[in-house]
Order: sequence, then C-alpha cells, then structure tokens
Amino acid sequence: MLTNKRILLSQLPTDKLSLDCFDSDQVPVPDLEVGQVCIKTLLLSQDAANRAWMQGATYRSALVGGDVMASYGIGEVIESKDAAWKPGDLVMADIGWQEYAVIDGGQVTAAPNHKGPISHGLSLLGVAGLTAYHGLINVAGIHAGETLLVSAAAGSVGSIVGQIGRIKGARIIGVAGDDAKCRWVERELGFDVCINYKSEDRQLRDQLQAAAPNGIDVYFDNTGGDILQTALFAMNLKGRIACCGAVSMYDTKPKPGPFGVPGLLVTKRLRMEGFIVSDYAHLDADALHDLSMWEHQGGLMLFEDIIEGLENAPAGLIGLLAGENRGKRMIRVA
Amino acid sequence: MLTNKRILLSQLPTDKLSLDCFDSDQVPVPDLEVGQVCIKTLLLSQDAANRAWMQGATYRSALVGGDVMASYGIGEVIESKDAAWKPGDLVMADIGWQEYAVIDGGQVTAAPNHKGPISHGLSLLGVAGLTAYHGLINVAGIHAGETLLVSAAAGSVGSIVGQIGRIKGARIIGVAGDDAKCRWVERELGFDVCINYKSEDRQLRDQLQAAAPNGIDVYFDNTGGDILQTALFAMNLKGRIACCGAVSMYDTKPKPGPFGVPGLLVTKRLRMEGFIVSDYAHLDADALHDLSMWEHQGGLMLFEDIIEGLENAPAGLIGLLAGENRGKRMIRVA
Repeated sequence: MLTNKRILLSQLPTDKLSLDCFDSDQVPVPDLEVGQVCIKTLLLSQDAANRAWMQGATYRSALVGGDVMASYGIGEVIESKDAAWKPGDLVMADIGWQEYAVIDGGQVTAAPNHKGPISHGLSLLGVAGLTAYHGLINVAGIHAGETLLVSAAAGSVGSIVGQIGRIKGARIIGVAGDDAKCRWVERELGFDVCINYKSEDRQLRDQLQAAAPNGIDVYFDNTGGDILQTALFAMNLKGRIACCGAVSMYDTKPKPGPFGVPGLLVTKRLRMEGFIVSDYAHLDADALHDLSMWEHQGGLMLFEDIIEGLENAPAGLIGLLAGENRGKRMIRVA
Repeated sequence: MLTNKRILLSQLPTDKLSLDCFDSDQVPVPDLEVGQVCIKTLLLSQDAANRAWMQGATYRSALVGGDVMASYGIGEVIESKDAAWKPGDLVMADIGWQEYAVIDGGQVTAAPNHKGPISHGLSLLGVAGLTAYHGLINVAGIHAGETLLVSAAAGSVGSIVGQIGRIKGARIIGVAGDDAKCRWVERELGFDVCINYKSEDRQLRDQLQAAAPNGIDVYFDNTGGDILQTALFAMNLKGRIACCGAVSMYDTKPKPGPFGVPGLLVTKRLRMEGFIVSDYAHLDADALHDLSMWEHQGGLMLFEDIIEGLENAPAGLIGLLAGENRGKRMIRVA
C-alpha cells in the first residue's frame, strides 16, 4: 500500500501567513471508488490566489483548518476507475500539497500536449500564460501605441502580460517591489520602465508620472491596494483596468478600497472588470497558439522558478507572497 | 440694452453646499461677436453633477469662485451672429444660472423636436432619460428575469432607470432616503420594492438581503458610498455595475472607496463601468424612440419637479443634494 505524504493547512492565518499554519502527516492512499483516479503529483503551482482561498469563499469554497492545502498541479495517473483516464496519462487538477491525490475523474483535465517541458503546462501554457493572455487581450484589450501598466511585473502573470503588451506595440510600465527586480524586468522582459513601489526616495505617484507623462490606458492589476489607488488617478479617459488579483490584500486584514471609486470611474469613464482564467476557456485555443508562437519566435521569454521538494511548499508560498519569485513559481514533488 | 440677472458661485464650498456660496448681480447683456448667439433662458436643469463640478475638473473644467454657476438648460435664441441659428430657435446649452447667455453657436444644440412640453427636453428626452437609457441598456445591459438595483430611485435618472428595467422584464429594487419616497417609488413608478437606506430599524444590508434573496445582477449606481459598498457584497457572479454618479461623495470631503475593490470584482467577475451620457450620443436615436414610445404607451411615467424663478436655483440645488426632489428637478426662468 502506498503512503501519501501531505501538508495540511492546520490553522487559518489571522494575519500574515506563517509556517506555523502548516503541518504534515503521512497516511495510506485509499482504495479507488468507481469514477476515481489516483494521481502521482509531479509539479504544484504556487499562486497568490492560494492565500485568497484562506480568506473565504471565492470562485471555490473557502479552505478550513485541517484541509490538505489546496493547489493546482500536474501529475501522472497511476491507477484509474474512470474510463476517461488510464495509467500514464499526464493530467491537471486541484491536487493539493500531497504526493498522491485520489480525485473524481470528472475533476481532472489533460495536461497540454506540447513538445516542451511539462512545467510549461503550469506556466506558459497553463494558468499563468492563459491568465495573462485573456486578461490583457479579452478583458482589457490593448492597442499599439497605448500605455500599459502592470503590477507584480516580475511575477508569473505580470512577467508575461508585459511581454504580450510589448509584442502588441504598447509602451509597457511595470511595478515591482525592489530595485534589483525592476532592473531584471527591464533587461530580461523588455519592459520600457519598471518602478519600485517600495522606493524610499520617490513616491510611486511621482515615479508613475515620470514614466507615463501621457497617462495610462490599460492597467493590469495583480495587487489592488496602493498601486491600484495610484493607477486610478493616472488613468486616461476610457481606460480599462483588468482586475486579476489583489495580492496586496490577501495577507492582511480587510482594508477599504481606493479613493475615487466610483467618482473617477464616472468622470474618466473607466471600466474595471474582474475575471478568472476559466471564464475564457472557449478562447484558450487562440491563447495557446499565440503564446507558443511568440515563445518559439523568441519574442516572449519564459521564466520558471521551480523549488524542489513538497516539504518546501509552505516556505515557497510565503516567499511568493513576499515577492521573492521571478516568473512562475512551482514545487517539484517528483 | 437688456439687463442680465445672474447667480454667481461666489465661493467654492469647503464642505456641504450652502446658500452663502452664491451671490447675484445684474449686468448688461454684451454685444454679440461674430459666431455668437444670445439665448434667453427658459428652463435650467438641476443635477447632482452640478455639485461635482465644484470639486475639480471632471468631464468639464472645474468651477471656480466668481463664475456664473454652470447649468445645462433650454432657451430661445433672441439674436444670432451664427448662420446656424436664428431668433426663435429653441436650443440647449451650458447656459448657466442667468437670464441671458451669450455663447458661441458651436456650443449650442437644437432642443428635441417633439410635441410635448419643452421641459421634456431636459427630462424624458434630455439628459435624465438618455442617461437612464444608455446606462441601463448600453453600459450595464439588462435581461428579463434579472434583478436590478437602482440607487437614488426617486431622482431624475433613477426614476426612469427602474421603469425601463420593469419594461424589460427585470425585478426592480430601488433605494431612497425616506419611507414616504420609498412608498412613492413603489406605487407611482412600479418598482417591486424600495428600501429606505436611512432606516433606523433595519440595516441596508439586511433589507437588501430580504428584497433580493437571490442577489443582484445589475446595479445602477447614482450614489457610490455605503450603498455601493452594500451592493458589491450582494452582487451575483458576472454582475454589472453602471457607474452613473456618486452623489453621496459630492457634498462632503473625500472618502475611501468600498471594501472589496478589487477583491470582489475578481472573485465574482464583476464589471464596474463609468459613463456620461454624451459617450452614447451615436445611439440617441434609439433611446429617444424607445423612451417616447414607452411614455406614449403609458408604461413609463414621467415626473417633473419644476421650481419657479431663477432666484430659487441655489435652494433648489441644495435641496436636490439632500434628496427632496421626486423626478427631474428644473428651474423655470421665463
């Protein structure tokens, strides 16, 4: 009988997420019921949204203390009682932080069929790439000559958003949390400018004014909070804000929203629109085609930040919330 | 030589708008320059936006102390040095609170050509009706069977929005500021329910939960503030918020925005979109056709609240900001 090492969310965080919110155990992998598959975990996705799931019900039910920590991931089917899947299939599912997951076959999808490393199924061709593409192309819309602002610019989604914007002919301004990351975003990702929002020398507002003297047409918001606040005042008439996430609000107590909501939305005729990647699944084929092509042509650089070992998942997520990753963070389990 | 009685915004309000912000004088009507027309004021529109113009630049430049108080209105051309206009033409323009306005002909538009009273050019067939129509139909979208929430439900725009929603087959919930107005909204305008947000007996949240146990699909927001806050938490997945105005924020110091921006926008995939009526001028013909037809058929009741006398314009606007009007408030000047 297989033993399953699991990491549990032993208690919900009351403020910042910390290691003592997690615990681990080992349990036998249960026998399959009809319709179930057993997946051996290969790679786990680490996303700021994992922290949001601890705050309450979102597009999925809230996590509660004692749950296996939830996480999307890629694995290999090792046993199946669902005719749709057979051993050896590479699949994606809400696997959670564990070595093996027993899941209903209907909750499982095939990993993308492509020539590159399987990690691309969570980065370029997975949640990161698709979120970046759909949010920029199908939610906000971007046009050549426009100015695009991207927060969490060094992160999994932001790093791809800015590059898509550049490919589309926009001027790209990133926001990140330290000078070294900002220089990396400019040099490696080709953003026109990247602003350090934690700079002690210059206020974000002044830096943004200098970087975008003609204002912002599209803001791809991964953070909410102060950066959204500053962006709202810099938006041009008929600007669009794609609301992708609010990482500044996940690891803290609730805070009020930005000044100027809804007043600035009216006077500037702004559109703010929230989305999650699955809303645009009907357009995934376009996204996968374009992303693959751009990466193949060399216009889009992909950065992956893979941490070895399930036991490092808690520190990996805490570090991600503190902004230590560059590109898509994942945990390699096997 | 004609004498022009004017009401000036003698000083900008620092908090609530009050009578001592206004002054009046009488000056000669100046001679026309080439391209100008002289308009004799008939009716002035009173709008919450008039107060917003005192806060700073919006979709028009900010008002400053000493200006003739700005206001849209209807008047009659009495002299013209612009070939496009001749004496006797009924026209609309930013006339301001004065008996006569000398304006460039290019800033003037023809009043709607219709059989009803000229006041309809500011109410049903003017800014109120068009704002209601475009915001509900072209910004938010409304479908039969959906639940529509409307704030400032007894006001010029809200009173029409709810009736359009009813005609389109939606369930309509209004919000207004006292019980008598709420009963009027239900009986005269045919809203399904109207909630008193100032009730001391029951919190707005609880009243909204009772009125809309299945949540809100579209919120037509005239107020911002606490009502927007409450609505955000009651919105259904993929809900739409048409941001028309923020009257709760105009007559006060700046306040932060609602909790849940942008978090709730992401998790519920909401769209918040600001607009002003002129953004949809290319669709005015549809709006005028439908509004006229609905009023003619008796499905849409029009309420006008006309105050006699230019000298009552300041008290009229202050009263409007306090919510004393039912339907479209105007000042009859001549």
